[in-house]
Amino acid sequence: MTEWITNPPPWPGGARCAVAVTFDIDTDSLIHLEHRDRAPDLVATTSWLRYDEVAVPRILDLYRRLEIRQSFFYPAWCMENYPELVEAILKDGHEIGHHGYIHENYNQLPADEQEAFFVRAIETIERMTGAKPRGFRAPVYNFSRATAGLLAKYGFLYDSSLMTDDVPHMVDTDGGSFVEIPGHWPMDDWPQYVHAPDFGYQMTVRSPEDACAVYRSEFEVAYEAGGLWMGVWHPWVSARPARLKAIEAMLLDFRARGDVWFPTLEEIATHMRKIEADGSYIPRRIRLPYYRQPIDPSFLPRKP
Amino acid sequence: MTEWITNPPPWPGGARCAVAVTFDIDTDSLIHLEHRDRAPDLVATTSWLRYDEVAVPRILDLYRRLEIRQSFFYPAWCMENYPELVEAILKDGHEIGHHGYIHENYNQLPADEQEAFFVRAIETIERMTGAKPRGFRAPVYNFSRATAGLLAKYGFLYDSSLMTDDVPHMVDTDGGSFVEIPGHWPMDDWPQYVHAPDFGYQMTVRSPEDACAVYRSEFEVAYEAGGLWMGVWHPWVSARPARLKAIEAMLLDFRARGDVWFPTLEEIATHMRKIEADGSYIPRRIRLPYYRQPIDPSFLPRKP
Amino acid sequence: MTEWITNPPPWPGGARCAVAVTFDIDTDSLIHLEHRDRAPDLVATTSWLRYDEVAVPRILDLYRRLEIRQSFFYPAWCMENYPELVEAILKDGHEIGHHGYIHENYNQLPADEQEAFFVRAIETIERMTGAKPRGFRAPVYNFSRATAGLLAKYGFLYDSSLMTDDVPHMVDTDGGSFVEIPGHWPMDDWPQYVHAPDFGYQMTVRSPEDACAVYRSEFEVAYEAGGLWMGVWHPWVSARPARLKAIEAMLLDFRARGDVWFPTLEEIATHMRKIEADGSYIPRRIRLPYYRQPIDPSFLPRKP
Amino acid sequence: MTEWITNPPPWPGGARCAVAVTFDIDTDSLIHLEHRDRAPDLVATTSWLRYDEVAVPRILDLYRRLEIRQSFFYPAWCMENYPELVEAILKDGHEIGHHGYIHENYNQLPADEQEAFFVRAIETIERMTGAKPRGFRAPVYNFSRATAGLLAKYGFLYDSSLMTDDVPHMVDTDGGSFVEIPGHWPMDDWPQYVHAPDFGYQMTVRSPEDACAVYRSEFEVAYEAGGLWMGVWHPWVSARPARLKAIEAMLLDFRARGDVWFPTLEEIATHMRKIEADGSYIPRRIRLPYYRQPIDPSFLPRKP
Repeated sequence: MTEWITNPPPWPGGARCAVAVTFDIDTDSLIHLEHRDRAPDLVATTSWLRYDEVAVPRILDLYRRLEIRQSFFYPAWCMENYPELVEAILKDGHEIGHHGYIHENYNQLPADEQEAFFVRAIETIERMTGAKPRGFRAPVYNFSRATAGLLAKYGFLYDSSLMTDDVPHMVDTDGGSFVEIPGHWPMDDWPQYVHAPDFGYQMTVRSPEDACAVYRSEFEVAYEAGGLWMGVWHPWVSARPARLKAIEAMLLDFRARGDVWFPTLEEIATHMRKIEADGSYIPRRIRLPYYRQPIDPSFLPRKP
Repeated sequence: MTEWITNPPPWPGGARCAVAVTFDIDTDSLIHLEHRDRAPDLVATTSWLRYDEVAVPRILDLYRRLEIRQSFFYPAWCMENYPELVEAILKDGHEIGHHGYIHENYNQLPADEQEAFFVRAIETIERMTGAKPRGFRAPVYNFSRATAGLLAKYGFLYDSSLMTDDVPHMVDTDGGSFVEIPGHWPMDDWPQYVHAPDFGYQMTVRSPEDACAVYRSEFEVAYEAGGLWMGVWHPWVSARPARLKAIEAMLLDFRARGDVWFPTLEEIATHMRKIEADGSYIPRRIRLPYYRQPIDPSFLPRKP
Repeated sequence: MTEWITNPPPWPGGARCAVAVTFDIDTDSLIHLEHRDRAPDLVATTSWLRYDEVAVPRILDLYRRLEIRQSFFYPAWCMENYPELVEAILKDGHEIGHHGYIHENYNQLPADEQEAFFVRAIETIERMTGAKPRGFRAPVYNFSRATAGLLAKYGFLYDSSLMTDDVPHMVDTDGGSFVEIPGHWPMDDWPQYVHAPDFGYQMTVRSPEDACAVYRSEFEVAYEAGGLWMGVWHPWVSARPARLKAIEAMLLDFRARGDVWFPTLEEIATHMRKIEADGSYIPRRIRLPYYRQPIDPSFLPRKP
Repeated sequence: MTEWITNPPPWPGGARCAVAVTFDIDTDSLIHLEHRDRAPDLVATTSWLRYDEVAVPRILDLYRRLEIRQSFFYPAWCMENYPELVEAILKDGHEIGHHGYIHENYNQLPADEQEAFFVRAIETIERMTGAKPRGFRAPVYNFSRATAGLLAKYGFLYDSSLMTDDVPHMVDTDGGSFVEIPGHWPMDDWPQYVHAPDFGYQMTVRSPEDACAVYRSEFEVAYEAGGLWMGVWHPWVSARPARLKAIEAMLLDFRARGDVWFPTLEEIATHMRKIEADGSYIPRRIRLPYYRQPIDPSFLPRKP
């Protein structure tokens, strides 16, 4: 039989697959980052992004109802500006991961600025949650050649920014290793729903049923083959009532299978480390960065 | 149980939700605004925009058949150029709201010009309808940092430009307060239908059934949870025969529930003010503008 | 009851609606027009556009099978370069309409060049078909302020470039009148199917069933309310086997209603003239151009 | 009856149609080609492209299970950088075709560079597979006016870059002839699935069921009318578990018809040559290049 997923790890308690719902709480960081001086005048888009204030409590309510704890990735600037949301998330025992300071694109910054913003976010998270973050997701998945080194240097347990594989695996760097918990565009909500002219992003807005059809097809194969199903969603996009209601129905269907594990990403990473350490699983390993410098230009046409 | 909608207001007569169909009657204002000197040569797109002349009477016919009154948002320049449509709308008792003078983007104009155009539209509406407008929707939702102040200064009862929430709430400004009746892209018809190369806008044109599937999913949750369902549509887009027929079928389905309220936006705003005043409901309040000036640049990377 | 279509004309023989399938045979005119010096290197896209050579005979075969005659719009340069297709079309009694000389965009040319190319196309059509064209469709619907005048000056019976209405009507100009047979984007095949990076046009390619769902919804309302259903299609897009097969099934369904008229556009225009002349129908009239010059700048913001 | 496919060739063993699944294994060639100096920082997109390392073995596994051999098109630089994948492909008896050296766009290079890169790829393939490639597919289908000449000069049996027709046919050039095995966008996976901001490519991500509905409609008509059904897919796109599983189900459905031929492209080309030589089939012939130089500018408007 075709193995739809290569080298699936054993999941705790004999679960057939892992289901993680992660929300990136970007709120209005994006608009300041992309529009700077014009941001104060982009009130409608800002109001939409700040819908996070309505949506995050609703997500927490859903999680209580489902009796699950999950992972939130949070630009530190947003934590500072919306501390009551941070408190509510922590109160319910969820994880908060590093998602940049103000949603900066790491692959567009000089090296010194990458580290400065990266550290600033760690400090904010430590100050506001009482502990350093264990996990990282690069804003817009924009990992630079330096990012893996920063994760190793600052002792991160895992990253969740890459699209390397269908299951978690190890990343080795010169400075140490971490677990990669990979995502992929079919599990992101932007391509399904986001129509935001201020960001030059104009998808046809699909129905919750159509979007969930994409997510559900990913689940079926993860369930069959022992994989990881991880939503990469945003409160102002997916926690609109009609969409979140469809998500609840979907998660209840998944849970009704009886043998699905609903962990935080930190729990997944810890599990991967454990089964690697006890020898019950040999994870795939990749080394980063892929390229420290551009490839030899003799391999390429003389522009373009 | 998860509350899909936070703090739903009590609706009149025990209705479970409010359903409002609003049309923005932009006609050919857009083409003059965006193309200026080239506009006279964009005859096909102009002819499509002026389809409003065919479509508005059809919408009025539908409303008579449904025995409802609804809200139209109208750039004042369009009122001046198509006065017979204005008369027909007023004759049937519908509301006309402020939608700019010529669909100008408030967030792209200097402050003096914002107010000049804003006032010019009020004057036209007052002259042509006999009363000042009570409500406002910014063209393309483009609200600037000054817009809320203008609404307060000129005594508006409500705005319907933002994407703050699922139900109406209050907006406070230095100069006074108004009701916000929020919308959202899944209830707009552009992402479903508009394919207009002259505006750099190229959606896959979907069937009326597919578009209504998006609108209907929004209704189901509003009905279940006590929310507001508000279409933000355009005659030259949604009042094509096949589309408007699908809309009628959908509205009839909604009405058949028996406990749905079909108000104008002014009626919604008046109701919100009433239940706030009599203490039967405590609305959410936000303060605008969100930002009077750009955030401190030290929070941001040195460009980009 | 709501009149889904305003002022439907009486159709011949008591037919409930008119169904016209029109193909624009642009072949590789587009690539020379848009890319000029680079065109010889755009071989794959050229090969796709020249699929017209495979597709046009197949369309003719389908029409013979359906026993219908229809209208083709043909850039004259394409007629000169693919004369065997022209002969085959004429042999089966179909109509050939004016579609520019080489698919030039009339609204992007100086006035003298508009008329020169317009006349050059008339001359080619007259030379190759033995008669002047009776109808016109502007390439990409790009009608300029001068185009209606040219149609009147050169004695055209009808135009089919605008999006004014759901049924044919009259257009008056300083130099005379013609019938407008209007189209609309939901009946065009580009938004459903065309993914052509060389033209900066990247639609998600939909299935024939999904595309026909859009077309069929337009038919149902035309049939119910007495309208016009007119496909604006292209051989290299819609005459791919799977798509044309779906079209055949759809047209057979329409014909099975028993009371649908399948005319050429010239027959529609002639019919409109006849019922106008005998007083059995009063068509809507519009006057073109809409604008001879840009509107007074005092109505507009000082840039943008 | 309408012939949905013109001049279908007789397929071996009386098969009703030919089904070929071709994968283009571009891995990270694209990112170096398009981004050069920035490529090392585009780690997330690179990680996604390098998902080929996970996906290619899975495709091979599927082919073993289906007991078919198929064709892979491989930029030679990728072969050099991922030799273990090449070995695995060859071990299972699949075909490897020429897909450029590093996915260079032939229609954007000067003539000398086109030939240099073209030859460099032949040399790599010969060195790594023990034989010269028999077939070619231009990266992004970007065939230049010189490409057909190169194919003839270097003795290629077939090309699979053009969109000329529904069935294979002959291409004649000054230097000799080859078989064209044409593709088309509805059989490509990019329009269905690829959402890759680093490439300026933002499709709504569709479900495997929706994508396969497009592919299946193409199959039904090929099966009915004796055509060719050829997937043009990419491991990092279509060999994601949910998508490849849907593909397997689809291919099993096709095979269950009992009279479908599953060849490599080389087998198709060899068959076409054979039936041409023995006189049992007269293929269509086209001559390339279509244009050796731009058309006479007098046929075109004076810019644009």
